[in-house]
Amino acid sequence: MERHIIVLLSLLLCLILSCHVSAAGATAKRRYSSPLSRRHRVITAEAAPATRVPAMVRYETRYYTQRLDHFNAAPVSYSTFPQRYLVNGTYWGGKTAPVFVYAGNEGSIELFTNNTGFMWELAPRFRAMLVFIEHRYYGRSVPFGSEEAAFKNASTMGYLSTTQAVADFATLVQSLKANLSAPAAPVVVFGGSYGGMLAAWMRMKYPHVVIGAVASSAPILGFYGMADPYAFYDIISNDFKSESKNCHDVLMNSWKELDNALSNDAGRAQLNRTFKMCRGSTVEAIPDMLDTAIVYSAMTDYPTESGFLTHLPAYPVKEICRAIDHPKSGKDTFSRIKDALTVYYNYTGNAHCFGDASEDDPYGMFNGWDWQACTEMILMSYGVRNRSVLPPEPFNFTKLLDGCRASTGLPPRPYWIPTEFGGFDIANVLKRSASNIIFFNGLRDPWSSGGVLKDISRSILALVEPKGSHHVDLRFSSKDDPHWLKQVREKETRIIAHWLNQYYKDEAIKS
Amino acid sequence: MERHIIVLLSLLLCLILSCHVSAAGATAKRRYSSPLSRRHRVITAEAAPATRVPAMVRYETRYYTQRLDHFNAAPVSYSTFPQRYLVNGTYWGGKTAPVFVYAGNEGSIELFTNNTGFMWELAPRFRAMLVFIEHRYYGRSVPFGSEEAAFKNASTMGYLSTTQAVADFATLVQSLKANLSAPAAPVVVFGGSYGGMLAAWMRMKYPHVVIGAVASSAPILGFYGMADPYAFYDIISNDFKSESKNCHDVLMNSWKELDNALSNDAGRAQLNRTFKMCRGSTVEAIPDMLDTAIVYSAMTDYPTESGFLTHLPAYPVKEICRAIDHPKSGKDTFSRIKDALTVYYNYTGNAHCFGDASEDDPYGMFNGWDWQACTEMILMSYGVRNRSVLPPEPFNFTKLLDGCRASTGLPPRPYWIPTEFGGFDIANVLKRSASNIIFFNGLRDPWSSGGVLKDISRSILALVEPKGSHHVDLRFSSKDDPHWLKQVREKETRIIAHWLNQYYKDEAIKS
Repeated sequence: MERHIIVLLSLLLCLILSCHVSAAGATAKRRYSSPLSRRHRVITAEAAPATRVPAMVRYETRYYTQRLDHFNAAPVSYSTFPQRYLVNGTYWGGKTAPVFVYAGNEGSIELFTNNTGFMWELAPRFRAMLVFIEHRYYGRSVPFGSEEAAFKNASTMGYLSTTQAVADFATLVQSLKANLSAPAAPVVVFGGSYGGMLAAWMRMKYPHVVIGAVASSAPILGFYGMADPYAFYDIISNDFKSESKNCHDVLMNSWKELDNALSNDAGRAQLNRTFKMCRGSTVEAIPDMLDTAIVYSAMTDYPTESGFLTHLPAYPVKEICRAIDHPKSGKDTFSRIKDALTVYYNYTGNAHCFGDASEDDPYGMFNGWDWQACTEMILMSYGVRNRSVLPPEPFNFTKLLDGCRASTGLPPRPYWIPTEFGGFDIANVLKRSASNIIFFNGLRDPWSSGGVLKDISRSILALVEPKGSHHVDLRFSSKDDPHWLKQVREKETRIIAHWLNQYYKDEAIKS
Repeated sequence: MERHIIVLLSLLLCLILSCHVSAAGATAKRRYSSPLSRRHRVITAEAAPATRVPAMVRYETRYYTQRLDHFNAAPVSYSTFPQRYLVNGTYWGGKTAPVFVYAGNEGSIELFTNNTGFMWELAPRFRAMLVFIEHRYYGRSVPFGSEEAAFKNASTMGYLSTTQAVADFATLVQSLKANLSAPAAPVVVFGGSYGGMLAAWMRMKYPHVVIGAVASSAPILGFYGMADPYAFYDIISNDFKSESKNCHDVLMNSWKELDNALSNDAGRAQLNRTFKMCRGSTVEAIPDMLDTAIVYSAMTDYPTESGFLTHLPAYPVKEICRAIDHPKSGKDTFSRIKDALTVYYNYTGNAHCFGDASEDDPYGMFNGWDWQACTEMILMSYGVRNRSVLPPEPFNFTKLLDGCRASTGLPPRPYWIPTEFGGFDIANVLKRSASNIIFFNGLRDPWSSGGVLKDISRSILALVEPKGSHHVDLRFSSKDDPHWLKQVREKETRIIAHWLNQYYKDEAIKS
């Protein structure tokens, strides 16, 4: 089974991107042999899905005329595209007051705007302007006039790269400040997951543009040779094991039973009796649905009810294990799995069947991330050990790269990102050449396997929470947040305040 | 007169590049209206010119298969070219011993290899490997198979940019260390002038690749909005004034006399009597020759006899002024100018006429630098005030950019380098986000007008010498070196030793 190689390339994004996966299976993904051609089926069980946007999220939509390629002077590089950014200036204190920038990830910028509550809640306190910048090739920030033209072939897709994206942010921010006649306004950059990587890299590469970075759940060490390629799934397995050994074992053993059942008519009939599949979907989708539910519930094992990937209860891993350990449908494996999937795909109770695929890629993210994940963003999240909560999958780097080569038609560049942004020996390097970065990681989050988990210096700090999940710190606060989460946000707030005070002192500006 | 706009784009390079300008005029340059099409005439008065290479300069020539474009994934970017680098491993202590890298400037790498004596003299002391890397599009490191193909049009020239060049150095160094099985070998990067800018930027952008940078006479602050555009020529004027007010005034007043003489037959006849021009050259070349002599003697006002730009006596500005103040040929202005030009163009006494152009561009540098100087490396060295040693030239940025646009057919990007590499508010930025850089500047050197002249932190140091000229510290030492120069080199050596000790301590490596 090589589905993990296939499935996981997009986890990071789907992760961050609130891929709404609900009572409809993420089915097709295991069928494709190439990571690039694989697509998640993203499903919204309800017309208006889980994201209810708080009233304070109000912004102006603007466009910046962005250069196609910053780093060479071939004439085509001078062509431009409209880069979208969303601005809220309600709280801005003017001229020397801070600008908080979100470094957009692999998807439409509204998603991050709507889900990065931390920035919205900070704005009044710091009299900050909020700016959410969309990443090139996502949402409406697409070169060459249309998505179709942009993704036509490798020559048009080629301008989708991290270095270009970070330079986009830098040029846009400089231009924005110039237009505001606020050259001295300090900028703090925020980001989660891939956006967190971009935020950290922006502080490292453009310290003259941003005074500090909040990099939440940013696996900047998740590259070949730095990260253990099995660690991603080890964490997921351990998340389930920590709730219940039985739950973990039921899941571990279910794969063989599912495979057996799917291999013959009687088995398929049994599955059909247990799982009421939607029209147009079949029981063949069940393994993928289970895989998705396991991986994504581990990532978003938030301490409060959430609507990020799908509508989920607080602590969804615990709830899935509760369903498995104390099933309502029956004591056989398939009934337990069905109850588990119900937690993940139908927490609201509004879905009447499994696998009701609706829209495939509502946020325009798969084309882009598949390309990035096979050209340069080759993150280590592929190997699954024996006796894991998911089927074993030996890590095979050659096969991974071959798959990428077949998909893109180009040689993958797995060593480029560490060459460009570093990573090896990071503590000794960054302690002498960078400052003002917060690396938040929750250890329940599989992406913490590529995170910075130790303080590097007095100003490059690792906030590590054993109970934390994927960029939980960036979410809107809730009265039900646990104490540790409140403390994390308070600490981040204090650190940001310190950066700003330091800056105002450096510049002799009265704040 | 807009010749300065035309002439000076290439000063930086010609400067560094040992443009051999001797008893033959640098004639044609003022005729062209476009900086890009302007060419220095580079003359070698003798078959084997001024550069006598010390015996210790021995190296192996190697080629690295370099990617055309690091920052995008369009298929053409994956094409490669052979990047030349010269290696001396004689003194290398192996595995954890240092590698000293020269960041090649705008010209054939042998020039820098032969003239950066400081690295050669340091190698035995530090048991260092020496690596001199040629800059893309110069010397033999030319993409697209041939120089003709590389410089065919903007689409092929477009890959000549500073960001690509610095990334070339980073990838080459990483590959070299991998091939040596010496991943822990610390790398220190050196560079002078444009190479010094690249060295400094390499430490800022790739601190994981180089542990420190010696950036000699690197005008990283020489961009619009940061540097006074008149400062370059102010320094040159002051260099001459500091030797003799009369000398300065004779030069200042000579331009009008030359122009007058050139405007009529009698005047030209007088000039022809005074200056014995070579066949194929005319007295129209004299103003350019004088301009070149003034600017380049100020830059290379070295304290010992030198053969960098041309064969010159120690303190050539003093010698030129001595010739003007105490002329041998006669007391009229033209005789004084003739004696001055003789110092610059015929110090050896081997030339029998003025303006004997031989080879135009022996080191393949003009094509490249003209392009760079009009696309992104738009350095401030254009304005000449009234009462200067050169004819007044009001600084006109619009005209400069218009000229560049006309030359390249592309919009110049004067703000790109400061956006990418910073510069504004450099002290407050770098004190928190960089370390281990030496900025050497000699205040006799007009390029010090764009240099970092104040310490930024305890590890980013400005070594400023009032009597220093252009990257004089990097030259081979001489028994006649003044005390201050010996001290500069000793201080640089101590600082480099400190960087290495710090690194070994960080890494717990016994050095």
